[in-house]
Amino acid sequence: MRRHRHQVRVSTLDSSDVHPAWLPPEALRAIGTRRTLVCGEGTLVDTVHAEVERAANRYGGSARRIAPETGLSPADLVFALTRELPATQSDDPPPGESDPAVVSAAIDAAKAELGAAGVEPLGAEGFAVTRHGEVTVVLADAPAGLLYGLFELVRLGESGFGPAMPARVCRPAMARRMLDHWDNVDVHPVMGQVERGYAGGSIFWRDGRPRRDQARVTAYARLLAACGINAVSVNNVNVHATEARLLTERLDDVAELADLLRPYGIRVHLAVSFAAPVVVGGLPTADPLDPAVRGWWAETTSRVYARIPDFGGYLVKADSEGQPGPFSYGRDHADGANLLAEALAPYGGVVHWRAFVYNHRQDWRDRSTDRARAAYDHFAPLDGRFKDNVIVQVKHGPMDFQPREPVSPVIAAMPGTRLAVEFQVTQEYTGQQKHVCYLAPWWSEILRFAPWGEPGRTVADVAAGGSDQAGGSDQAGGGDRTGGGLVAVSNVGDDRFWTGHPLAQANLYAFGRLCWDPGLRPQTVLDEWIDLTFDPATSPDPELLRRTLHEIMDDSWRTYERYTAPLGVGFMVRPGQHYGPDVDGYEYTPWGTYHFADRDGVGVDRTRATGTGFTGQYPSPWLQVYESLDHCPEELLLFFHHVPYTHVLRSGSTVIQHIYDTHFDGVREVEAMCRRWEWLAGLVDPTVHARVTERLTEQLRCAREWRDQINAYFHRKSGIPDAHGRPLH
Amino acid sequence: MRRHRHQVRVSTLDSSDVHPAWLPPEALRAIGTRRTLVCGEGTLVDTVHAEVERAANRYGGSARRIAPETGLSPADLVFALTRELPATQSDDPPPGESDPAVVSAAIDAAKAELGAAGVEPLGAEGFAVTRHGEVTVVLADAPAGLLYGLFELVRLGESGFGPAMPARVCRPAMARRMLDHWDNVDVHPVMGQVERGYAGGSIFWRDGRPRRDQARVTAYARLLAACGINAVSVNNVNVHATEARLLTERLDDVAELADLLRPYGIRVHLAVSFAAPVVVGGLPTADPLDPAVRGWWAETTSRVYARIPDFGGYLVKADSEGQPGPFSYGRDHADGANLLAEALAPYGGVVHWRAFVYNHRQDWRDRSTDRARAAYDHFAPLDGRFKDNVIVQVKHGPMDFQPREPVSPVIAAMPGTRLAVEFQVTQEYTGQQKHVCYLAPWWSEILRFAPWGEPGRTVADVAAGGSDQAGGSDQAGGGDRTGGGLVAVSNVGDDRFWTGHPLAQANLYAFGRLCWDPGLRPQTVLDEWIDLTFDPATSPDPELLRRTLHEIMDDSWRTYERYTAPLGVGFMVRPGQHYGPDVDGYEYTPWGTYHFADRDGVGVDRTRATGTGFTGQYPSPWLQVYESLDHCPEELLLFFHHVPYTHVLRSGSTVIQHIYDTHFDGVREVEAMCRRWEWLAGLVDPTVHARVTERLTEQLRCAREWRDQINAYFHRKSGIPDAHGRPLH
Repeated sequence: MRRHRHQVRVSTLDSSDVHPAWLPPEALRAIGTRRTLVCGEGTLVDTVHAEVERAANRYGGSARRIAPETGLSPADLVFALTRELPATQSDDPPPGESDPAVVSAAIDAAKAELGAAGVEPLGAEGFAVTRHGEVTVVLADAPAGLLYGLFELVRLGESGFGPAMPARVCRPAMARRMLDHWDNVDVHPVMGQVERGYAGGSIFWRDGRPRRDQARVTAYARLLAACGINAVSVNNVNVHATEARLLTERLDDVAELADLLRPYGIRVHLAVSFAAPVVVGGLPTADPLDPAVRGWWAETTSRVYARIPDFGGYLVKADSEGQPGPFSYGRDHADGANLLAEALAPYGGVVHWRAFVYNHRQDWRDRSTDRARAAYDHFAPLDGRFKDNVIVQVKHGPMDFQPREPVSPVIAAMPGTRLAVEFQVTQEYTGQQKHVCYLAPWWSEILRFAPWGEPGRTVADVAAGGSDQAGGSDQAGGGDRTGGGLVAVSNVGDDRFWTGHPLAQANLYAFGRLCWDPGLRPQTVLDEWIDLTFDPATSPDPELLRRTLHEIMDDSWRTYERYTAPLGVGFMVRPGQHYGPDVDGYEYTPWGTYHFADRDGVGVDRTRATGTGFTGQYPSPWLQVYESLDHCPEELLLFFHHVPYTHVLRSGSTVIQHIYDTHFDGVREVEAMCRRWEWLAGLVDPTVHARVTERLTEQLRCAREWRDQINAYFHRKSGIPDAHGRPLH
Repeated sequence: MRRHRHQVRVSTLDSSDVHPAWLPPEALRAIGTRRTLVCGEGTLVDTVHAEVERAANRYGGSARRIAPETGLSPADLVFALTRELPATQSDDPPPGESDPAVVSAAIDAAKAELGAAGVEPLGAEGFAVTRHGEVTVVLADAPAGLLYGLFELVRLGESGFGPAMPARVCRPAMARRMLDHWDNVDVHPVMGQVERGYAGGSIFWRDGRPRRDQARVTAYARLLAACGINAVSVNNVNVHATEARLLTERLDDVAELADLLRPYGIRVHLAVSFAAPVVVGGLPTADPLDPAVRGWWAETTSRVYARIPDFGGYLVKADSEGQPGPFSYGRDHADGANLLAEALAPYGGVVHWRAFVYNHRQDWRDRSTDRARAAYDHFAPLDGRFKDNVIVQVKHGPMDFQPREPVSPVIAAMPGTRLAVEFQVTQEYTGQQKHVCYLAPWWSEILRFAPWGEPGRTVADVAAGGSDQAGGSDQAGGGDRTGGGLVAVSNVGDDRFWTGHPLAQANLYAFGRLCWDPGLRPQTVLDEWIDLTFDPATSPDPELLRRTLHEIMDDSWRTYERYTAPLGVGFMVRPGQHYGPDVDGYEYTPWGTYHFADRDGVGVDRTRATGTGFTGQYPSPWLQVYESLDHCPEELLLFFHHVPYTHVLRSGSTVIQHIYDTHFDGVREVEAMCRRWEWLAGLVDPTVHARVTERLTEQLRCAREWRDQINAYFHRKSGIPDAHGRPLH
């Protein structure tokens, strides 16, 4: 019954006009042509079977569900759990079929291979794919591994059914791979249905109510599973009045989503208001040390788990940008986070407690206050005080998802705390899904960054946790508990292409893949995405398509960086909306986001010697590197230093000429993108082509606007003409 | 019956907690203590009688309605129409009463005085007040004159009942004295219930429906009549979908307002969409030359007049900031305006056609396009083509209600067209009713400005129309038809003080008074307003109150000018909201509002010699005056010229030092305002005192922000320190 219902859900997708993203039917063609056996019990195994069966129905293969005791039948592909492998003896094969003994042998070989290699347990989500004697075998210790193995096989396509291959063992680097949806239930008068959403409305909520578009949510879950995501927070971290009640009287709405996400191995989390005991519970206080408050959270949380037994936990933005928090009661973030952790602990839930805390009513005249310092100043002193099921969620940079920032020093500062690193898939500051901006190269740089210097533990290692990683120093701490993993703000909405810009799908895909394996090369991930999304088997010119998409996307983040705020200075965007240039837009505001450009120079002096001292929050060697004008990476020059326009870069160019040059270059690169995309007319779905063309037109307009405003601004301030005589306005 | 209903409406006001503005009960004390006779018929005479009766009920006087034939009774005050003066013979007086013959003699004397002085007819709204033998007589040719005479007597207070006084003859300078309400029926998602409203919601509409708060609308009408307004447009010039239907299926809502405004002599006008034939009428076109379109407007207008016989006419913002207009059909503004004029002509209605037309998608890089030129370029060539019942409504300056602009050259450019001059009582660019900014001095300057040089016809003369004005030149044209009058955007909302800032009431009052008599001194108008609003008879220290209010308000517009955008350059406000500083906020936008500051200088070169040529739109002598750097009024220096920061002003100060000085001065003046207002605690209604205190706190904060941002901006750009060493940031 459950299986049947599930199949119906999946199949309704085919009739919708929603773009299939990286799971078009063709992506499962190689599987669908095979005879597949699926062995095991439970929801996730049901899902594997349903997926295979659907593909088989389309492409002429078969999908047989077997129990360990029922024995094998002839097959090209087997999914099985290591703890209950199917019996390797079987009935006689039907005439004309290959011998089940071949299948049995393949399973045995796979098992032996795993044992021989001294491979550790595959774990809750890991899997192995092997191929012996024309039979591909996917083994896992637990059902989720079979699901992820299925999607690995989708990526492999026909190459998963070629010559025998040695065991391909995959385990996720991060235990929790999470997306935060900044979706509002009620349409917010300023921020809309989805805060910082650039892909239409929410797929979960509309106009104050659940959408109840089961097919859409199921399709989303399937896409997420296929790239490795296993947790979703379903409402905005800015928790408004209606949304605060998802925790209590509107819990059924959350449970409904949990039911839809569960078949794809995704647990639901909920953003809650720290003031919930007051605004929802009617208590006079939300003081974390008040027994009645603790009781309220315990009671409320028990009700949540009674309704959603695999509920993931709470996400909290506290004492940040006007949200309530423990400061109101003279308590600190550890008190606040531990309050919720205590309520969640009996059920295995976690609290994601955001470290994005700063003074958003800063006086711009006061150059001693530095927003970049805030997260460290607030959280580093609390290291060691958080309970085990608290995850402190740290934005990757010290500011706010700019196209270029240094890695947050908090990441190196809390060895006794589980940290999650937060990224932003939604392109708030990177072109709002109107601009092509493939973000995997940026995330990859961050994940590979070694906070204590090379060689050593990386940002990815800190997020993954454990002590089994190479390198590290005394300061790195570590221990063997699981890290907080990676979290990102989703870029998905009810747009037919999911992400507004069809090419922005690649960012969502890449985020999931980098969560699973932070060592993946961004180009490799892009190749996976291209192969899945644009079926090369039916493309008239798959190589032109692949090459062109790489040319457009590989360097698109750096292109965006070139035509926007220069040299890491950030925040030259239009206030509020954060799209398009406004060089002084944030310069005299309370938001702590300044560039201090005057007629002589530009940049923020964050050194210990003469500036805000922010560099002192880094361990060696970065402390010294960032402090030094000579050694500071130039892409971060203006983040750390205030320099004259005539400062000479290592390239030999001055800062002002570098600004002019990169802005002219950036626009030229967008012009090239537009030309290249034209070549793809006829090679991709016409609706995709049209949408991307429309977005590129806007990107080009906006990039020219950035170029001209930035150049005009700095020309008017510096009075220095372009060395090449180009118009600066 | 009608009289009774009317009285009920008026009397409900007393029980509300809405501030009485300039008509507290005490304002009618002098009248209320007298025995009054009101002679005449009709709605407006009913109103006069009801007003007097209400005051008499409060203060022990009496109000007797008499017919001309019923004869006089003893009285201190008589209202009568010149064409049907009451019979001067009467019954014997009751014992102890003064002789009606005294009253009769006073009327005769008044009549004789008017005749002897060779006074022309008082006209539709004029009146005469005289006093003879202890009887004050108000005479008018028409009922509206009696109403305005009543409110003149309210202003006079006890001095209207002192020694005999010669006839005081008053006629309005402008036939139409109009307020435009930018009130939306539906709450606009961005602009709210009232576009550019700073006093709460609309008094007419709420959440898509009429408010039906009759008492409030009646109270408003009464306040307007008391300052001389006689026309109100009841919806936003940006006509959205719902509002477009006020013209048709929602006409009853408009009629309801007309019924409430009529007793105070106010006619209702309606802002309509030029696209109404399409969006409301379902026609395929709104082409003004299309017979079906003309037929639709004729038919629709006939229905409007059938429902509202004294309907005033249509107000149209066409081909401006995205509003539809005749350009879509290859027609011009004359075609468009004449279309509506033709429909309205049979009923005596007028079209107000706004001249606020410019390219709001300008390229900031293109220094040859000048928004200041736009209204003239669009409209001057059309002079003579508009029908007689078209009023071209011209903003007083060429830009958009900045705190300082030159007078619009359009005002001197259309001698063959009825022009209305538009002001903005709502303080969009002048502190949004958070700042004290008494605007009468600014309006007075504009109204007294002589577009063809001194001596000569003034802006007020052009708006008033006719050829009976002194001065003028060949270019001035003129003729004897009525001018378009004055129009202003209202500053009123459902705030209990009407205008958010209680002192902003004075702007509304002053606008009405200047419409009536543009020659009034702003300080005189303020005195009137103070005397009416803050009953001096009961004040513990009326002179301190008066002096302090003058100190706070008289120069407050110039104070505002000092701490905001310097030397007429304008538009250094935060885009969209237009509150608070953002020096570059509009600099790189399509709105045509630039200052062109660079490291060397600032200002817009609008000369013919080297700039946009805007100066060429002025007749002599202003053409030469504005063109010349030596003769240009310095308060407009940066409006007309781009100068170095080191340019020396006639004061001997440089431009940059002038900027620093005025900004420090402006804030000091606000600090003084705050101190002075504190002195008034106990001298004014505590709720008024508290509200103004709250606003002053914000004004001071904002003024400091202006000072510091403007100074920091120009210091960073120029590199020139303050001569007095003050901090510039």
